[in-house]
Amino acid sequence: MSEGVRRVIGIDPGLAATGYGIIEGDTRRAEVIAYGAIRTRPRWTRAERLHHIHEQVGALIEEHRPHELAIEEPYVAKNARSALAIGEARAAVQIAAAGHATPVFEYPPATIKASVAGHGAASKEQVQAMVTLQLGLAEAPTPLDAADALAIALTRLAEVDFEARLAGSGSTP
Amino acid sequence: MSEGVRRVIGIDPGLAATGYGIIEGDTRRAEVIAYGAIRTRPRWTRAERLHHIHEQVGALIEEHRPHELAIEEPYVAKNARSALAIGEARAAVQIAAAGHATPVFEYPPATIKASVAGHGAASKEQVQAMVTLQLGLAEAPTPLDAADALAIALTRLAEVDFEARLAGSGSTP
Repeated sequence: MSEGVRRVIGIDPGLAATGYGIIEGDTRRAEVIAYGAIRTRPRWTRAERLHHIHEQVGALIEEHRPHELAIEEPYVAKNARSALAIGEARAAVQIAAAGHATPVFEYPPATIKASVAGHGAASKEQVQAMVTLQLGLAEAPTPLDAADALAIALTRLAEVDFEARLAGSGSTP
Repeated sequence: MSEGVRRVIGIDPGLAATGYGIIEGDTRRAEVIAYGAIRTRPRWTRAERLHHIHEQVGALIEEHRPHELAIEEPYVAKNARSALAIGEARAAVQIAAAGHATPVFEYPPATIKASVAGHGAASKEQVQAMVTLQLGLAEAPTPLDAADALAIALTRLAEVDFEARLAGSGSTP
């Protein structure tokens, strides 16, 4: 990883499957380092499942040394039960990030979709197609959780670019 | 701690204050080992707050070596936002328990109130008074989060007693 290149890990947290995607560069030229999903088994206890997500996110941070972690900001879930489960999975990710002194950035779902696919109501498949295109991948990243995680990481890079342009440092080639 | 004596840590999770209470013995004679609250600051990031809860629960487990951890089962929160926050705090506790191979037991709020105060609609102050009485404390445990945590731990001990009686091993003095 060359100096000045930003590496971001995007995470789409879920109790059964937590998508992750690690990219580096900027929005015009971003390279995929790794992507996939952390899976837990329904027969494990809730504590074991959360501990596994926490451990695996920590292992990914240790292996790939991202500068930042980007995560979806909780939308208002349809019901309290699913909000609770999302909260638990999100906490496992955030605790791993804090344990490795990795700053966490959060983006609402509509911002991620708008950033990657051009409009806030894009479908998961549209997001997957745009991620494939933007990252120059030979095939669409699967599972969809991993595609979402890559979209979250791309959203962070887009924000960094935007902030750099605002600061006037992004106008020189 | 003598052999055969069960030590339980009860936890009342919350993002701002997480109550804890460690007791050992059985419901007829339970001794308080420690109680209090883990506090986080609003100016910390969410990740830092969750990480702190995780670390402090882990430190309590390492210091006091409870056999089991008891936690309130999530009631259906009034809104999704508070369910999410409760879920995050609960996850920090569960991950710490799993990291120390400590089994987690969950009880609904009404079960805890019924177990300690005799009816499922008891107020927090009634629970606090009954915990003080049952544990033979000179003064009521504060904050209320700590009293709740002690009540949760007592609920676990009551269940153990109940199961022992069912198994027929609780009838000998």
